Amino acid sequence: MRFAVYLPPQAAGGPVPVLYWLSGLTCTEENFVVKAGAQRVAAELGLALVVPDTSPRGLDLPGEAESYDFGLGAGFYVDATEKPWAAHYRMYSYVVGELPALVGAEFPIDVERAAICGHSMGGHGALTVALKNPQYYRSVSALAPICSPLHCPWGEKALAGYLGADRKRWRIYDAVALLDDFGWDGPPLLVDQGTADQFLDVQLKPQLLHAACERAGMPLTLRMQEGYDHSYFFVASFIADHLRFHASHLGLAQD
Amino acid sequence: MRFAVYLPPQAAGGPVPVLYWLSGLTCTEENFVVKAGAQRVAAELGLALVVPDTSPRGLDLPGEAESYDFGLGAGFYVDATEKPWAAHYRMYSYVVGELPALVGAEFPIDVERAAICGHSMGGHGALTVALKNPQYYRSVSALAPICSPLHCPWGEKALAGYLGADRKRWRIYDAVALLDDFGWDGPPLLVDQGTADQFLDVQLKPQLLHAACERAGMPLTLRMQEGYDHSYFFVASFIADHLRFHASHLGLAQD
Repeated sequence: MRFAVYLPPQAAGGPVPVLYWLSGLTCTEENFVVKAGAQRVAAELGLALVVPDTSPRGLDLPGEAESYDFGLGAGFYVDATEKPWAAHYRMYSYVVGELPALVGAEFPIDVERAAICGHSMGGHGALTVALKNPQYYRSVSALAPICSPLHCPWGEKALAGYLGADRKRWRIYDAVALLDDFGWDGPPLLVDQGTADQFLDVQLKPQLLHAACERAGMPLTLRMQEGYDHSYFFVASFIADHLRFHASHLGLAQD
Repeated sequence: MRFAVYLPPQAAGGPVPVLYWLSGLTCTEENFVVKAGAQRVAAELGLALVVPDTSPRGLDLPGEAESYDFGLGAGFYVDATEKPWAAHYRMYSYVVGELPALVGAEFPIDVERAAICGHSMGGHGALTVALKNPQYYRSVSALAPICSPLHCPWGEKALAGYLGADRKRWRIYDAVALLDDFGWDGPPLLVDQGTADQFLDVQLKPQLLHAACERAGMPLTLRMQEGYDHSYFFVASFIADHLRFHASHLGLAQD
């Protein structure tokens, strides 16, 4: 498994807090690093960035490369239960357990002070990973997340493939279902969503997240950004706000 | 010829000043747009960005694709005089004349308020284009520029190929020679250079620019940036400083 790490200059003086970034469909660990322009602000704040790939690579499983929204580049941050995926497609356990243990051991990163953020499929990943593990993440945010894989074609295809046909078993990987089932005691969720995003109505559906937060009595900062699309230009436009949001909950001083 | 344009929100209220960005070897008009993270600051300042490609494309001239440092992606911002390049490889005239006329006519851009900046081969381009045309550019800066193509392998290969063997004819495309011959009455040149740049000693040679500025009595702000390499991560780290430098000379208000 490949991942990218950005260490701010403050890491020379001891372990720094970390923001995990989960990427969207078709991405590797490189897209965010090259396109989001996050490092300059992370350097200012003293925040490490850890950016995993979006699926295992190099397994040559049958069908893994047939579509952009399943298999390679599309791990959906679940632990698969169906063959042939179950033995390898375990992105949930990887993000929650293996990756933090590794970066905590190998880098000057204080994994006890962690937050998580992501884009599109990775926004779904960030939300579900945090909602299921509030003890590990001080705050969570997302840009153009898939809000409910139970209620969109991308999610239905991926969860059926990785988890099988029983939709009840999908609920532990659905942010809306998790909010309904468990709530969230952390700080408000921060979500940015472009109004000109071509996936807004069919795949992303922030209104479902909004309704779930209302039902759960959970504060949600949902910012509909006029005219922005689904691209990394959208991410680059607002990533600084997300870094500062997380820094404030991680106890980092800001100007 | 392809080029990229970024218009800040202020352009909705009328023409805005422009910064031309000239890219380095192997780049197209996309690299800076995707990797430099400049748009967020340009939006804040109200500065348009115009980013040309680095050579003509699609001509299929003999030898144009044989090396990364000559032909495609390596126009060197000169008007070639040698066959078969002379009819097409005219990046100097394109950047100075055709491109400003086009963007001034087609976009809400005030090309009378212009500045120019570039990286590596594009840093050489920005310096030489501005030094030869002080009437067009209020300020000029460069990141890791080729400071004197007369005195490095990249420059000798390119200028010999495009301009022929007579080195006297290269001087109008050499920043050091131009400073010696014509000086510069504009604001100080701003140059950032990473100390861990793998091309520093053989190709870039900022000491030649420093010496030429001393001879010309010309202020140079040469910042040697400890540990930075030649990549777009270096550009992304310091591009905001360059945008603010140019904004100050273009009369844009800043916080």
